[in-house]
Amino acid sequence: MERILITGGTVLTMTGPDAVYEGGLVAIEDGRIAYAGPAQAAPAEVRAPGWAQRTIEATGRLVLPGLVNTHTHAAMVLLRGYADDMRLMEWLETKIWPVEANLTAEDVYWGTALACLESLLAGVTTFNDMYFFMADAARAVADTGARAVLSRGIIGSGEDFRSRLADAWDFYRAWHGKADGRVLTMLAPHAPYTVAPPELEKVAEAAAEMGVGIHIHLVETRDEVELLRQRYGKTAFEIIRDAGLTRHPVVGAHCVHPTDADMEIFAAAGGRVAHCPVSNLKLACGVAPILAWRRAGVPVGLGTDGAASANQMSLWGEIRLAALLQKNASGDPRAFTAYDAVHAATAGGARVLGLEDRIGTLEPGKRADLILVDARRPGLTPVHDPFSILAYSTNPGDVETVLVDGRVVVEDRRLTTMDAAEITAKAAEHARRLVGAA
Amino acid sequence: MERILITGGTVLTMTGPDAVYEGGLVAIEDGRIAYAGPAQAAPAEVRAPGWAQRTIEATGRLVLPGLVNTHTHAAMVLLRGYADDMRLMEWLETKIWPVEANLTAEDVYWGTALACLESLLAGVTTFNDMYFFMADAARAVADTGARAVLSRGIIGSGEDFRSRLADAWDFYRAWHGKADGRVLTMLAPHAPYTVAPPELEKVAEAAAEMGVGIHIHLVETRDEVELLRQRYGKTAFEIIRDAGLTRHPVVGAHCVHPTDADMEIFAAAGGRVAHCPVSNLKLACGVAPILAWRRAGVPVGLGTDGAASANQMSLWGEIRLAALLQKNASGDPRAFTAYDAVHAATAGGARVLGLEDRIGTLEPGKRADLILVDARRPGLTPVHDPFSILAYSTNPGDVETVLVDGRVVVEDRRLTTMDAAEITAKAAEHARRLVGAA
Ligand SMILES: [Zn+2]
Ligand SMILES: [Zn+2]
Repeated sequence: MERILITGGTVLTMTGPDAVYEGGLVAIEDGRIAYAGPAQAAPAEVRAPGWAQRTIEATGRLVLPGLVNTHTHAAMVLLRGYADDMRLMEWLETKIWPVEANLTAEDVYWGTALACLESLLAGVTTFNDMYFFMADAARAVADTGARAVLSRGIIGSGEDFRSRLADAWDFYRAWHGKADGRVLTMLAPHAPYTVAPPELEKVAEAAAEMGVGIHIHLVETRDEVELLRQRYGKTAFEIIRDAGLTRHPVVGAHCVHPTDADMEIFAAAGGRVAHCPVSNLKLACGVAPILAWRRAGVPVGLGTDGAASANQMSLWGEIRLAALLQKNASGDPRAFTAYDAVHAATAGGARVLGLEDRIGTLEPGKRADLILVDARRPGLTPVHDPFSILAYSTNPGDVETVLVDGRVVVEDRRLTTMDAAEITAKAAEHARRLVGAA
Repeated sequence: MERILITGGTVLTMTGPDAVYEGGLVAIEDGRIAYAGPAQAAPAEVRAPGWAQRTIEATGRLVLPGLVNTHTHAAMVLLRGYADDMRLMEWLETKIWPVEANLTAEDVYWGTALACLESLLAGVTTFNDMYFFMADAARAVADTGARAVLSRGIIGSGEDFRSRLADAWDFYRAWHGKADGRVLTMLAPHAPYTVAPPELEKVAEAAAEMGVGIHIHLVETRDEVELLRQRYGKTAFEIIRDAGLTRHPVVGAHCVHPTDADMEIFAAAGGRVAHCPVSNLKLACGVAPILAWRRAGVPVGLGTDGAASANQMSLWGEIRLAALLQKNASGDPRAFTAYDAVHAATAGGARVLGLEDRIGTLEPGKRADLILVDARRPGLTPVHDPFSILAYSTNPGDVETVLVDGRVVVEDRRLTTMDAAEITAKAAEHARRLVGAA
């Protein structure tokens, strides 16, 4: 595979707030990072004339790991803006579920392709997805060149549950580790209030057999906390622990309303939090206690949730909002710094997905998932502090170049792997049909 | 002046949530809107062949009024990201004020030019500014083609106060109504805790003589409320009323911590609120009670505040956050809808600045300040609801074309009036000097 040098940029390896290398160098070989850091400290080999087949000039750009979206339902971009400003249950029952009942495999392919396109253009190189028709979602990920952890959403009981778990097995066998390792899977029981304990136990058994993690919604709303208390006399975290799910790595989406005991349970079990601040505000769910989760030792990443609730697949709004909300909630503007926010979106997100040995920082041996942000743009000028620029001033349009697995998938703000206009047109067409049929 | 037709777009006049015209038409003559609405209902004259010198093809775009930023300190873009994640007083005393002490007229010219460039590219056509070296700020507004209400910030007492008020008079005489009416002024006493009642009374007298409004910071923090109570035994709103300021139109920036009585005072006086949600969260000030302000009958617009605290001059983040915060604060996702948020950023902002007869909606006779948002972009696809797309999915890079006063100032995402690269380079150079000198 191509050897690539990225020269002249400000390299942020995300291994620490002081790891900022102006005029730094990144060298890529066989899809992996061979070197990232000060140019003068690079191995003589990569600096030798002719080492690279391709050199990317990055003067004036910030070079950092690709962003990691730790919770989404990608194909729901088809329903972006279809039904906003509604109460959660009314929204699901009158709008989302009737439409989803008509969803086809082709809808999911084009919806996921649009989500990949929007994500990659915004610098989001990896996303953690829970939906259905996952083989079609996987084809879209493979075709667009993105990286994703894709999980068949599992809900219900009886035959419904069994067929969905069987789907998850089929998907695991067909796609886990495929597309050069860019597609992985987890098991995704929707939530403790939609999947009962006996079924959660079966999911835990399957996780043990597959050796994969769990992706689940946890304590998004207060209503849900109350419902579980009445139904089981337990919290969501007690339920998943008792069902054996926490014997596996669990990615909990939202985690807005834990008790102190819940935090101890989840921390002790090695649980991880996918924080979705935009979605949580939009559905009036509250602000997740992210500072407390971090104090408890639980890794925190950022997620958009589906575009039907959060309306974007870009993570820049979540980065900014995560920092702003923790400052305001704690009454301390020093809380959750710009670095903390960028870290949560990169290294933190990789940790949440259990991919910290592959992605999330620019370190030798890791897969080369990285982005160039054009800091010469008016809205990013001047660069007194690169982390501040990234956390508070960067928007999707500022991302210029994106590499996934050492391959340039976005160049000069354009997707290189597929025809973007075709994806957009096809997705719009499928969205129209879907909404018209409901 | 040029006659322009804008054809094929989805025209949102912002005169109501139902005023959505697909394949609509906007006609512009002498810098004013001659028509905006359904193509078939347009006067025969503007539809006659050869009427327009220029036709802008807008199929797939959303056409709406330019955004109005109701509170900023534009030249502070030079300090964007210079000192984040700090407590307010430490931030001011150790970082901002030492640097501002070295500020020159040329710094303000290039800083304001950068702010205009960033604003216009993002679709913000008007901003309400409080700073110093305002003649230089005005030159930048005139040169870039933006529209602004510019006010000399007035602070202190004695000779300091007198010289600043004299400055404001000089600026009023030199610039009020200039640049084809694109530059206006107000009087801007900084805040009731930095300008004492006797001086506020003198400002009120000057406002009566000039016939202009007041731009002032009001109850941004709880500390400030407590300080005024201890010092004067009054609230900020009681102070400005008793000093006679509320006999004039008052734009109150922030207004986070009013009492119920304050709301009555301000509503009765015809006061207006410039809501700055990003700045308020970043400095941990709280969430302004915007739903209550609106219930009290007070017009609400959106503002960024200076880029040293809010880090962007784009208003898209404020639009999204204003809606999200009111939903979460009220516990009701139906509160502050997408339309409400877009309205606050356009017609609402115009009303806050007392410019509702000139800008803020697309209606015949108003100045032609309008923007085209490219809704064919991946992140804005599909368009089930244009207001939802604008409120929750649009980012600065999605703005394609911008007109101010009937002149195309941004075309295909590029400034037409000045050399953008020169502005960015000069501003970066001035920012470096400024920070180096501190
Ligand atoms: Zn979700
Ligand atoms: Zn201010």
